[in-house]
Amino acid sequence: MGHSDRLLMGPGPGNPYPEVIEAFGRPVLGHLDPEFIALLDETNDRLRAVFKTDNALTFPVSATGSAGMEATFCNVLAPGDVVVIGVNGVFGERMCDVASRLGAEVVRVDAEWGQAIEQQRMLDAHPNPKVIAIVHAETSTGVRNDLAEIGAGKGDALFLVDCVTSLCGIPLEIDEWGVDLAYSGTQKCIGVPPGLSPVTVSDRAIANFVDRSQSWYLDLSMIAKYVTGGGARAYHHTAPISMIYALHAGLGVVLEEGLENAQARHQACGDRLQEGLQKMGFELFAQEGHRLPELTSVRIPQGRLPEGMDEADVRRILLERYSIEIGGGLGPVAGQVWRIGCMGHTARQRNVTLLLGALAEILD
Amino acid sequence: MGHSDRLLMGPGPGNPYPEVIEAFGRPVLGHLDPEFIALLDETNDRLRAVFKTDNALTFPVSATGSAGMEATFCNVLAPGDVVVIGVNGVFGERMCDVASRLGAEVVRVDAEWGQAIEQQRMLDAHPNPKVIAIVHAETSTGVRNDLAEIGAGKGDALFLVDCVTSLCGIPLEIDEWGVDLAYSGTQKCIGVPPGLSPVTVSDRAIANFVDRSQSWYLDLSMIAKYVTGGGARAYHHTAPISMIYALHAGLGVVLEEGLENAQARHQACGDRLQEGLQKMGFELFAQEGHRLPELTSVRIPQGRLPEGMDEADVRRILLERYSIEIGGGLGPVAGQVWRIGCMGHTARQRNVTLLLGALAEILD
Repeated sequence: MGHSDRLLMGPGPGNPYPEVIEAFGRPVLGHLDPEFIALLDETNDRLRAVFKTDNALTFPVSATGSAGMEATFCNVLAPGDVVVIGVNGVFGERMCDVASRLGAEVVRVDAEWGQAIEQQRMLDAHPNPKVIAIVHAETSTGVRNDLAEIGAGKGDALFLVDCVTSLCGIPLEIDEWGVDLAYSGTQKCIGVPPGLSPVTVSDRAIANFVDRSQSWYLDLSMIAKYVTGGGARAYHHTAPISMIYALHAGLGVVLEEGLENAQARHQACGDRLQEGLQKMGFELFAQEGHRLPELTSVRIPQGRLPEGMDEADVRRILLERYSIEIGGGLGPVAGQVWRIGCMGHTARQRNVTLLLGALAEILD
Repeated sequence: MGHSDRLLMGPGPGNPYPEVIEAFGRPVLGHLDPEFIALLDETNDRLRAVFKTDNALTFPVSATGSAGMEATFCNVLAPGDVVVIGVNGVFGERMCDVASRLGAEVVRVDAEWGQAIEQQRMLDAHPNPKVIAIVHAETSTGVRNDLAEIGAGKGDALFLVDCVTSLCGIPLEIDEWGVDLAYSGTQKCIGVPPGLSPVTVSDRAIANFVDRSQSWYLDLSMIAKYVTGGGARAYHHTAPISMIYALHAGLGVVLEEGLENAQARHQACGDRLQEGLQKMGFELFAQEGHRLPELTSVRIPQGRLPEGMDEADVRRILLERYSIEIGGGLGPVAGQVWRIGCMGHTARQRNVTLLLGALAEILD
């Protein structure tokens, strides 16, 4: 069975870097092979470089981004613990779901979808939470929530951040901003297929781990004995070898380009796309000053859709005629917004040009 | 960074089929792309064929085998529920750990490591358990636990089975044997790198799901809306696209060879390896009549190790001189047994010949 060669401009996955696909071809090693351990160590060094952290416990969780969310929450929250969660999209909602399944007391700080959350509100929401959690880049709305003031004012709380769509796409400073736990995904701005969730955890968070997390698979205390075990690596579960090759290669591409250069490339593509869409008469959905370059949300121009077509038809034509994927809206903005990603290898000016041209052909 | 081309004869991963590595090279699709949904559906059909089941809810969990264990347990066990668990190795122990974190009451049925568990003991252990759970192929000891009598006598209990090392390696009849929940791993006899956990769940098990599983990521009720959603697939988490290509391809190889032929190949390799080891004077560890062909455990012949060498030295020489990986013992049999796998693409007679030759050169 062959597959179409899509231009992936949805909310993720983006197109992977060619070097990443090459890495999948490498011979499979065992998870305790010294050559694999060396590669895993180097992968984790590269993750520290892009997360901007010195955290020893920095590694890819063996599952997709949402498992990283669950892993970070379930190792620091016990039943009855208070967690303040910022909610301005699907992924803030998901955090509430995950935390409440752990029996935590959830204090929500809501903002309208499309708007950013004011940092001071996160600090004022509760006098003494165990955890303050927020999404850096809301993939459902294209909004950036800022972090530095929360980290500076968190007090004794642990600061937990969803970096799924921000890592390698926009500036992120785990240590400087006082983030204690963060997770990401491979399929966004790292330019790797989905499958792993890079996480980083501060020593302060480790000191506050629950005794025994509700999840065995995501028990970071046990996994740490494999990941940071020095010479003796204790088997926990079998690492997903080939996906780690892919992550290693994707991070290599980003760091060879230079993290700041990769971020600048994402910014330039996002700027050009957002300008182009506005010139075509589209209205951007995300709050000005908080727009993600890697994920652009636009209101669907209902009046401009060709006679008899709905927004899903437009996306279908993009897919079938141009082999371009863009994303629809989720939850309350389903049918109202499109989400257009420029992430990883997709973040090239020519792809922006192509999409704008295709949209013009369909709509005009 | 290049990697050595290992012959993987440890407890998994085995060597992947060449067609699997080819599949990694396919263009990445989005997780809602109709082409990807078609491929996922076909993958799940292939899983039904090798599990020998009609279960609608049959799909690969987006994480490694141990996450499949957690996914099956956490969707049917609530705090206080009784679960009978057979324990004769690491993976039975792991089941107890997972179940007790869920607050379940665990009734253990222990057998000595290396011995099989008598099926009647599983049925006699508790008058009315919610779940009876056992490992089909204990990867830590090379022992096969039989299932059919447990399934026939389970009564109202749900029957949950670990098939990580058995699927595609030895006969397995999910429906005929009355198994309600089963999970496997890709890196054993399916011949795919580690990263996914195929699961299958009966309608009877679904009818007994807990209201809201402790895990969001492994909530099978939610995932089912994506996997079995018919025309409308609800997004839960981003599927690990490339790993699913690999699984699809590996299952294709097995089914093209014929499932029974693939099992016979595993059996023939295991028989030849076990005969060869015994001819060399090794003592097999697993109980006669319950020896897995795909995973052979042997007592380490301490008296025959070359002067000044311990068992880890022998494994190191195999790796460094011959680029062959075999496995050491886990837990109470660490240092006492080796575990030699013949799984997936590794299960070829020439690999058995090579390993026996290499061992003879080192030991004689």
